[in-house]
Amino acid sequence: MQLPFELTILGSSSAVPTSKRYPTAQVLNALGRFFLIDCGEGTQHQIRKNKLSFGKINHIFISHLHGDHIFGLIGLISTQILLGRRNDLHIYANSNLQKLIQFQLDFLGNEELGFRLVFHPLNFKKKQLIYEDKRVTVTSFPLNHRIPCNGFLFREKAKEPNIIKEMVKKYRIPIKEIKNIKAGANFTTSKGDRIKNEDLVVPAPKARSYAFCSDTAYFEQLVPIIKGVDLLYHEATFADSEKEIAQMTFHSTAKDAAKIAQQAGVGKLLIGHFSARYKNPELLLEEARSTFPETDAVFEDDQYSVKHDQ
Amino acid sequence: MQLPFELTILGSSSAVPTSKRYPTAQVLNALGRFFLIDCGEGTQHQIRKNKLSFGKINHIFISHLHGDHIFGLIGLISTQILLGRRNDLHIYANSNLQKLIQFQLDFLGNEELGFRLVFHPLNFKKKQLIYEDKRVTVTSFPLNHRIPCNGFLFREKAKEPNIIKEMVKKYRIPIKEIKNIKAGANFTTSKGDRIKNEDLVVPAPKARSYAFCSDTAYFEQLVPIIKGVDLLYHEATFADSEKEIAQMTFHSTAKDAAKIAQQAGVGKLLIGHFSARYKNPELLLEEARSTFPETDAVFEDDQYSVKHDQ
Repeated sequence: MQLPFELTILGSSSAVPTSKRYPTAQVLNALGRFFLIDCGEGTQHQIRKNKLSFGKINHIFISHLHGDHIFGLIGLISTQILLGRRNDLHIYANSNLQKLIQFQLDFLGNEELGFRLVFHPLNFKKKQLIYEDKRVTVTSFPLNHRIPCNGFLFREKAKEPNIIKEMVKKYRIPIKEIKNIKAGANFTTSKGDRIKNEDLVVPAPKARSYAFCSDTAYFEQLVPIIKGVDLLYHEATFADSEKEIAQMTFHSTAKDAAKIAQQAGVGKLLIGHFSARYKNPELLLEEARSTFPETDAVFEDDQYSVKHDQ
Repeated sequence: MQLPFELTILGSSSAVPTSKRYPTAQVLNALGRFFLIDCGEGTQHQIRKNKLSFGKINHIFISHLHGDHIFGLIGLISTQILLGRRNDLHIYANSNLQKLIQFQLDFLGNEELGFRLVFHPLNFKKKQLIYEDKRVTVTSFPLNHRIPCNGFLFREKAKEPNIIKEMVKKYRIPIKEIKNIKAGANFTTSKGDRIKNEDLVVPAPKARSYAFCSDTAYFEQLVPIIKGVDLLYHEATFADSEKEIAQMTFHSTAKDAAKIAQQAGVGKLLIGHFSARYKNPELLLEEARSTFPETDAVFEDDQYSVKHDQ
């Protein structure tokens, strides 16, 4: 059974929410780790609606300190206090965020949270590994917005290839050799026959990856960082007709997002963060698809699952 | 045509929101004035969903400074800035709220709002008239919660009775007498006949009223203040089986709310602020109705309109 690598969209609007769209928030379930990405107002409501468990979310990644990406944090934290959370909650963000959260917690008279709130300040000048466990890494990297803003790259770690049991038997491969073979070595039998590595192993499934890029102007420096990811979320606040407003406000058009996806050769592009001026994102989707056909416009409660190639 | 006196429920849950209920917020349309009462997380979303106009909301009344009654404020204000609001926004609340809002606005770098944010500090020791115009008054009054907390009483002003035109003709009543007659005077004709006031006027329709009481423990001191209101919203966080938790946390049971409604002889009781432990409020509604039959359990987007008696 494959472990999940699945993205849930909690909020897809830009700063002014509409009656149907919430400000930015997403949850990535990466092999059982639940990563919350941004936390606009209403995120805790959307978490419940999508039957995600608060208690399983231990890591929150905040791209930048605009209200539509952070206003849901204090509500989420307050609810965690009320629900008696015990496990650490890690927040990866601009170091200033801690001041805001601390002020709010003090204001509300929360002396004892019952759990540790661990702040991890982000670097907005360069790419940085910010999370790693035995199966997953998370890297932050600079975007190009009006204020310091980071994207996030979530990667499953590459697995070793599987050794073919029949070959172990056939060539009487000693256990101490197996590690080397998994790492790519050939094998020489006791008779001196050289068996090629590719005949001894089945390659591991391709490690899966997801990149989150919001908010940002068109920014080609992204391309090498997100090269070949399976899934890319790239903001597309405006249609092509508003490209001057996009430039002025350091946002992207749908076409900008598609150009980045094309250059990076991603598997699938998701666009979101739509301006409230668009009643629906059909025009934006059309404009993106004309450059990069494998594009979806996200909506609340949408799920995107990345599967291993079989 | 009657001017509206209509309450819209934006949020009906207590501190922990559920997948269907938002924390406390309501809008009262009192003769065209749109009063926002409390502002939990998600209020701006609910305002849009109910097609209420942000721009028409000029007065916000905040009962107390618990998160589930205020976390939506900064998002609402930020959206007003983005939408280019110009008219004053009045906030009636504990004076400490201004510090929180100012800190958040400074944090977000909002130097120029484009409109005035006018804070009106509330008195939590005694009843006080906090708003008055030619048609409506709003009075705050203390509740009994863990922290300083006020209820709000919204009253249409009593109108003068209407003079009966046929009588003006019949008795040749001079214009200068009409004001006195409307104020209750009898009239003496030129022949010396005394005409009783009640034969000259039609009484004005009864002035309508709404009282908001949340959060509070059972608190009989409310009764004289809200006596005879048409509509009473009283929190009912718990069922009778949890009455000890209710007392400990300074909340009410559904029965408590009903007892207050009964003693105050209100027209209709609305209960809300339900604990997330109740999947639906049927039990609470039943318990309240056993004491005060004219009770409704509120839900998001419900509307309650108070009409003049015809």
